[in-house]
Amino acid sequence: MGIIRIGRAELRVLELEKSVEYYRNVIGLDVVARDRHRVYMKAWDEFDHHSIILQESDSAGIDHLAFKVETWEDLARFEKSAEAFGCTVKRVSNGSRIGEGEAVRIEIPTGHQVELYKDIEMVGTKVGFINPHPWPLDTKGIAPHRFDHCLLTGEDIETVTRFFTEALDLHQSEKIMTVDGEVMVGSFLHARNGKAHDLAFVKGPDKKLHHAAFFVNNWYDVLKAADRLTMFNVPIEVTPTRHGITRGETVYFFDPSGNRNEAFAGGTTVYHDSPTITWTEDKIGTGIFYHRRELMESFGKALT
Amino acid sequence: MGIIRIGRAELRVLELEKSVEYYRNVIGLDVVARDRHRVYMKAWDEFDHHSIILQESDSAGIDHLAFKVETWEDLARFEKSAEAFGCTVKRVSNGSRIGEGEAVRIEIPTGHQVELYKDIEMVGTKVGFINPHPWPLDTKGIAPHRFDHCLLTGEDIETVTRFFTEALDLHQSEKIMTVDGEVMVGSFLHARNGKAHDLAFVKGPDKKLHHAAFFVNNWYDVLKAADRLTMFNVPIEVTPTRHGITRGETVYFFDPSGNRNEAFAGGTTVYHDSPTITWTEDKIGTGIFYHRRELMESFGKALT
Amino acid sequence: MGIIRIGRAELRVLELEKSVEYYRNVIGLDVVARDRHRVYMKAWDEFDHHSIILQESDSAGIDHLAFKVETWEDLARFEKSAEAFGCTVKRVSNGSRIGEGEAVRIEIPTGHQVELYKDIEMVGTKVGFINPHPWPLDTKGIAPHRFDHCLLTGEDIETVTRFFTEALDLHQSEKIMTVDGEVMVGSFLHARNGKAHDLAFVKGPDKKLHHAAFFVNNWYDVLKAADRLTMFNVPIEVTPTRHGITRGETVYFFDPSGNRNEAFAGGTTVYHDSPTITWTEDKIGTGIFYHRRELMESFGKALT
Amino acid sequence: MGIIRIGRAELRVLELEKSVEYYRNVIGLDVVARDRHRVYMKAWDEFDHHSIILQESDSAGIDHLAFKVETWEDLARFEKSAEAFGCTVKRVSNGSRIGEGEAVRIEIPTGHQVELYKDIEMVGTKVGFINPHPWPLDTKGIAPHRFDHCLLTGEDIETVTRFFTEALDLHQSEKIMTVDGEVMVGSFLHARNGKAHDLAFVKGPDKKLHHAAFFVNNWYDVLKAADRLTMFNVPIEVTPTRHGITRGETVYFFDPSGNRNEAFAGGTTVYHDSPTITWTEDKIGTGIFYHRRELMESFGKALT
Repeated sequence: MGIIRIGRAELRVLELEKSVEYYRNVIGLDVVARDRHRVYMKAWDEFDHHSIILQESDSAGIDHLAFKVETWEDLARFEKSAEAFGCTVKRVSNGSRIGEGEAVRIEIPTGHQVELYKDIEMVGTKVGFINPHPWPLDTKGIAPHRFDHCLLTGEDIETVTRFFTEALDLHQSEKIMTVDGEVMVGSFLHARNGKAHDLAFVKGPDKKLHHAAFFVNNWYDVLKAADRLTMFNVPIEVTPTRHGITRGETVYFFDPSGNRNEAFAGGTTVYHDSPTITWTEDKIGTGIFYHRRELMESFGKALT
Repeated sequence: MGIIRIGRAELRVLELEKSVEYYRNVIGLDVVARDRHRVYMKAWDEFDHHSIILQESDSAGIDHLAFKVETWEDLARFEKSAEAFGCTVKRVSNGSRIGEGEAVRIEIPTGHQVELYKDIEMVGTKVGFINPHPWPLDTKGIAPHRFDHCLLTGEDIETVTRFFTEALDLHQSEKIMTVDGEVMVGSFLHARNGKAHDLAFVKGPDKKLHHAAFFVNNWYDVLKAADRLTMFNVPIEVTPTRHGITRGETVYFFDPSGNRNEAFAGGTTVYHDSPTITWTEDKIGTGIFYHRRELMESFGKALT
Repeated sequence: MGIIRIGRAELRVLELEKSVEYYRNVIGLDVVARDRHRVYMKAWDEFDHHSIILQESDSAGIDHLAFKVETWEDLARFEKSAEAFGCTVKRVSNGSRIGEGEAVRIEIPTGHQVELYKDIEMVGTKVGFINPHPWPLDTKGIAPHRFDHCLLTGEDIETVTRFFTEALDLHQSEKIMTVDGEVMVGSFLHARNGKAHDLAFVKGPDKKLHHAAFFVNNWYDVLKAADRLTMFNVPIEVTPTRHGITRGETVYFFDPSGNRNEAFAGGTTVYHDSPTITWTEDKIGTGIFYHRRELMESFGKALT
Repeated sequence: MGIIRIGRAELRVLELEKSVEYYRNVIGLDVVARDRHRVYMKAWDEFDHHSIILQESDSAGIDHLAFKVETWEDLARFEKSAEAFGCTVKRVSNGSRIGEGEAVRIEIPTGHQVELYKDIEMVGTKVGFINPHPWPLDTKGIAPHRFDHCLLTGEDIETVTRFFTEALDLHQSEKIMTVDGEVMVGSFLHARNGKAHDLAFVKGPDKKLHHAAFFVNNWYDVLKAADRLTMFNVPIEVTPTRHGITRGETVYFFDPSGNRNEAFAGGTTVYHDSPTITWTEDKIGTGIFYHRRELMESFGKALT
């Protein structure tokens, strides 16, 4: 049945407690568990055990991200197709991290570590499954619904896209092509879940994280998120605007280690039969920042 | 690969031209084609040939609704599983209606006609697939993104739910149960597309349509939709409010033939592993109308 | 030079502590002071000492409401003009209530008690006057910006309107007239402050309160307010909708004593040279509830 | 009774027809009248004859702006007080421009021309004064409610503020002071109308226009405005954000002649007794752009 969604990201952070405080008070995630070097967190509307893991490290960035699959057959099937694609694949045993079942770890063509898993402890959302209220009263911070997607950089966007679409059956919702149509320089991918993207790539150095995004309700909640960022003195890189790509509404900012975060709202509903939208590189400015219509230098350079 | 989404509904209307005018000027659909007794329409953000067919008739209601599948194998597989479930199934030949390929027509346990299809002519959205703007300037009316879902009534909600989840692999996002937990009286189903529902059922007479819904951006667009309805003197049954079920924002109103329409926004993202939310019948008022907390008489009775 | 705004209302409530809890936790006002039978409260964005006084009583309703004037000359001038209009007028001495200076108390033609005052202790808003943030992080409940307006009922709308426009120099922004244009049955009045209304009257029994309204940011905050009301199990009379009159967005509900409250957003900016808008009584439904287009029985009858 | 509001601005534009097209199709104003060198325009929600006059010229900028007063006595009184303040004052005779009555023209301390007037032809809004709908269906462009305010630059902010508060009885809602509290470098002024500002000044060269602003409903309409600007290829200087000063939501862009425009929403309600809010110059970045927290170079330099 395939991949359900991006399920988690393990972020490397420099000062663990300072980072926990940020992800708790500013983003508004809850701490679910801790082990020696990691803190496990989730958003109020997520039912699985965790979606963000903070790992103390000497350098910021992303340790790995992981997709949840529906069945054990999916796990075995994708393990084979990843190997057939030429990736290094290994099993991560049950319980290597808290709450998680056995996983398959793949080094993808951009050098990032991506895991697939079926099992994770279910802890439930903050509103429950019986006659739930639409939102909980006791949140703090930006209080996103969920960890939404990651953008990574890599040298070879074409190959990593083929990996995800051919080996893992993701669908490409949008892409950025050089004007001559020869080279893919951006790629937006999603599982069978209607989201505009679970994972995206833009051309750049391998193994790097561009940003990790959290989903908020709407454009007004993007404003309130940005307001909070100023109140908490969090550096904002890109003030509220719309993306051309995905049509989503956004604000970009940095966690205490320099990992870029996004509060993202809206975004078009994409189906598996939706034609892939093409952005030509001369319009990349409008594609990324629909109002500004050009990239800012930091946006291409600040990677972790 | 399975069902992608509800793709179309063919509505029976009493006066065709008056209805076309309503769906064009008030809802804001475009007329794509016409044949002797039918007008084919689509919303600006849909890429397939049509999503709403108006069929002139002596009585209002729904002729059939149809789900798009991803592959011909899906079509054959679901044809068999529907037959195995005990439904009457027949093939609808290519070109029976404009723009459509061959379909499988199933009489589901509630007596409604449901079709499955793979092929439909692609006409594209109003913003295109190359460097698209996020929305088109030249819309009119409520201008929804898409036909979103239908709610039907039926005597046996349990069986029709089993049909869709077992034979067609839909997922049940939410359900309403009698307080003793014995009988299912409401059921909300979606394909693998993240939507809160493609199709829903509540207990009532077989073969009836409760409403057909169109998707708008957000709560503010629900307000603007309701404002337009008053300007166009369209009868509103339920003024803007939130649903407990799906968390969506809504306004209900009637087309000139008495078919109930909804402008629907928001709604939670539901995955195939999302636990089915249970509403107990004593909370059905809050589930349906989160602010009013009780049903109004017309809402259960006005069916077509 | 004249009246600045409606500055406060003293509401009669049946159970003081239960009411304080409601106005604090549900509405989100702060308790500023207490004396033997009264609790003084204010909204976070108000700088004067209080805007709502709760007075324990055997019956719900309104003890008095009060307008703030700019100068002592205004107070003396309006005292005279009210007497000249034929009203009973008396002075309320400095310190009769906490934080308040001397006031002029007028029995207006509908029998309600209205005070005018210049002095009230300044306590400041929750965001301060030096480099303020746009909103405070530590609010609870609906957290309106301010007490906004009251609607009262009275037998003679024409005369009470003449009193406020001629004796107190308020401006009439909108009015409701019988279809023959002979009798005024609704009147919306504001001071020189751009608000759509500080005080309004509709035809009904003298001395009664229809509702006291609190101002929230926008239509989305009206939704969140209505959501909270359901979470707190507060009875909602009118679910979110738009007013034709004032164009404002609204939700109506009841405090524990049965006093009707409103969360109100938007509303047109009205100037002193704005032509008074006329609603004809046959359109009163649309004027009051723009989407429903008719009054509900309770709305005319539930008065305190 | 005093000044009601800023009533109009006459902007100098380089190519008249191109500018008319912009203010009509992009901003969404209606052309009301034309004479040899001028085009008179208004927004749909304004009832006076015009609010924006475009004057063909060799250089962009502002010819004059004008405040509407309530009575002829106001006009005479302010004429005297302006003269007493030391300004050059002259009468502009009835009919010098279309639809306008006699005016008083004042050269204010910053060298700008400011007129006061009582009479202007009333043409009414697009929704009328009898049972009006809340908004008209037939708008185009951004379709603001009104011309809202201007920001001008000048060498001596202190004196021009004294002029407006002492001679014309405007109220200062907010101000920017050097950190030592010695020098005023920004000043926000409004008439008795609740607006956050009718006119503002920041330190800079005399006689210059910083921007002319139009009022839209809310933050979502700011987004839609910004979207339209990209669709019409209008240069945006500042993408959607919040102001610290006034709390308003904003997007800044340029008309074809280089005059800066703003679509402005929200903004706090300010009364004549509201304490003037002080921004210290070290926080000017946050005051102007609450999320960016610093000025951009162009914002101080692009003046017309």
